[in-house]
Amino acid sequence: MSAQSPIVDSPHTLIGFTELVALLHRVFVQHGTSPEVAAILAHNCASAERDGAHSHGIFRIPGYLSTLASGWVDGKAIPVVTDVASGFVRVDAGNGFAQPALAAARPLLVSKARSAGIALLAIHNSHHFAALWPDVEPFAEEGLVALSVVNSMTCVVPHGADRPLFGTNPIAFAAPRADGPPIVFDLATSAIAHGDVQIAARKGERLPPGMGVDSLGQPTTDPKAVLEGGALLPFGGHKGSALSMMVELLAAALTGGHFSFEFNWAEHPGARTPWTGQLLIVIDPSKTAGQSFAERSQELVRQMHAVGLRRLPGDRRHRTRAKSLGQGVEVELQALNQLRDWAN
Amino acid sequence: MSAQSPIVDSPHTLIGFTELVALLHRVFVQHGTSPEVAAILAHNCASAERDGAHSHGIFRIPGYLSTLASGWVDGKAIPVVTDVASGFVRVDAGNGFAQPALAAARPLLVSKARSAGIALLAIHNSHHFAALWPDVEPFAEEGLVALSVVNSMTCVVPHGADRPLFGTNPIAFAAPRADGPPIVFDLATSAIAHGDVQIAARKGERLPPGMGVDSLGQPTTDPKAVLEGGALLPFGGHKGSALSMMVELLAAALTGGHFSFEFNWAEHPGARTPWTGQLLIVIDPSKTAGQSFAERSQELVRQMHAVGLRRLPGDRRHRTRAKSLGQGVEVELQALNQLRDWAN
Repeated sequence: MSAQSPIVDSPHTLIGFTELVALLHRVFVQHGTSPEVAAILAHNCASAERDGAHSHGIFRIPGYLSTLASGWVDGKAIPVVTDVASGFVRVDAGNGFAQPALAAARPLLVSKARSAGIALLAIHNSHHFAALWPDVEPFAEEGLVALSVVNSMTCVVPHGADRPLFGTNPIAFAAPRADGPPIVFDLATSAIAHGDVQIAARKGERLPPGMGVDSLGQPTTDPKAVLEGGALLPFGGHKGSALSMMVELLAAALTGGHFSFEFNWAEHPGARTPWTGQLLIVIDPSKTAGQSFAERSQELVRQMHAVGLRRLPGDRRHRTRAKSLGQGVEVELQALNQLRDWAN
Repeated sequence: MSAQSPIVDSPHTLIGFTELVALLHRVFVQHGTSPEVAAILAHNCASAERDGAHSHGIFRIPGYLSTLASGWVDGKAIPVVTDVASGFVRVDAGNGFAQPALAAARPLLVSKARSAGIALLAIHNSHHFAALWPDVEPFAEEGLVALSVVNSMTCVVPHGADRPLFGTNPIAFAAPRADGPPIVFDLATSAIAHGDVQIAARKGERLPPGMGVDSLGQPTTDPKAVLEGGALLPFGGHKGSALSMMVELLAAALTGGHFSFEFNWAEHPGARTPWTGQLLIVIDPSKTAGQSFAERSQELVRQMHAVGLRRLPGDRRHRTRAKSLGQGVEVELQALNQLRDWAN
């Protein structure tokens, strides 16, 4: 089970990355976002598809459209950025998506990180429905180290508890290196990402043991049982659970956003996007003593390969990206036709 | 297997916390540290013992004395603090212990965190041989949120690799809450802490499966096989491994310290302390929008209890601390007599 496994049970076709972004842009605008928000979400979603991160690619579009139609999220929200302190930026996303809020605050955040050495971005009143690595990778591409956490919606049982409370609460990290693309990872603190459970359910596959429980709290490998009243477990037992708790504290308590258990979308049938918060920490490694950070991280990569590691986190995405940018992005024909319908 | 499990196979006695600190202070000074360094290490070590964190309590003293005797670490080092930027402090620990370096930089770090909203402390040229939670908990006690990572020495096989490279590379986090002691966790990114393997070996116990490999890289539950040429595995598979890699990047590459695989103590028989780096990030949550952070974190705790969680991270330590401060710290009589010998 992997976010990268291609969906092989239907005919595929190729579409240029720029064309896919333009198509998704039309889809978002047609369904109630501003052109500015559409541009950001379209690029984000197309990038996931381009990188083979299918669980956060066009697979997510029905969820976006459903949540927009429900009135749960404001697709035209204009984020309000506050310059709080020399290392602290706050954004009220205005009940809109988190990515436009990040984009609005980004220049100030980068400027503060370069000046202060470290800076924090606290996004609240926001909806995050995408992969988290696209939020951190661009910082590493300009030589910065970035860490981000976002909380989501109650679906993970804290280790030692009986019932779900935490979200899948991913942690993403990106760091530059001298001789290659940035080192990037994005990991759900749940044993499996929610999108992967949805994909397994759609493909009729079982989950590995230890990923989730059914509606009675009993262990199950049936993705449908997890989705229908069941819940996920944290990865790595009490340690993953502690990290998931940390994500709630950083992404919600520290930003002024909702915890994963605090919002109620019952009045908005079709709502899909968690209304929470997101934290980013950006560090300027040029403030470091000694040899350049990128040379040092490259040395770590070299040694990781020397002990037999064949694939770094992010390697598969970068390879798929190169292929997609060369030949076009491979998408299901049926999904592409559906997007074209939605775009008009 | 737990860091907190008392050692029950020998007679115990009680000693007052202050008396234990004073005794350990004499031990450190007698074995080559300055009084200033002794004061910090003695308080740190006694605090672990007081909290029932035996694997980082007086159990560590022979290792401290051995490493001091070897000339590997400078017990009289005077840390050099550099004010790098409005959110960035650097300390050269001068080949001494990390805790005195943190203590030397702490006032500047706290002042920057309160002013900039977030601040980073990069410690390099340092030796960390203690638990990590004592480094972060005091920040939460004064209303700040703190995160720290420290790398150690090659003993963990990266997920997907054949041979060890990473250290046990713990992550510690502390956050204040309104109605109780701070929320604190300290987790090795290895499947088990090195100190716990040593304790299991000493007690003749087996390890749970999935913790380590022997010198041939084969899975083993024998702690001695892990210690004698074997290695540990990361917790939580590829996710824990990614976090361990992040710790190498933050604690070593970003501080100017050594990676876990970079130092060579072959010329110093008896050396025990990894010569690496440590990173701390301290955040002032009063910069947050809305309700106070401590009220919000308290609400998270309330809800964690409501879903059936009986014990928070840190709860057991705090309970043991209260008991130790009331009746005295419970220590092995033999170990206490040994300390008294070493103190004179």
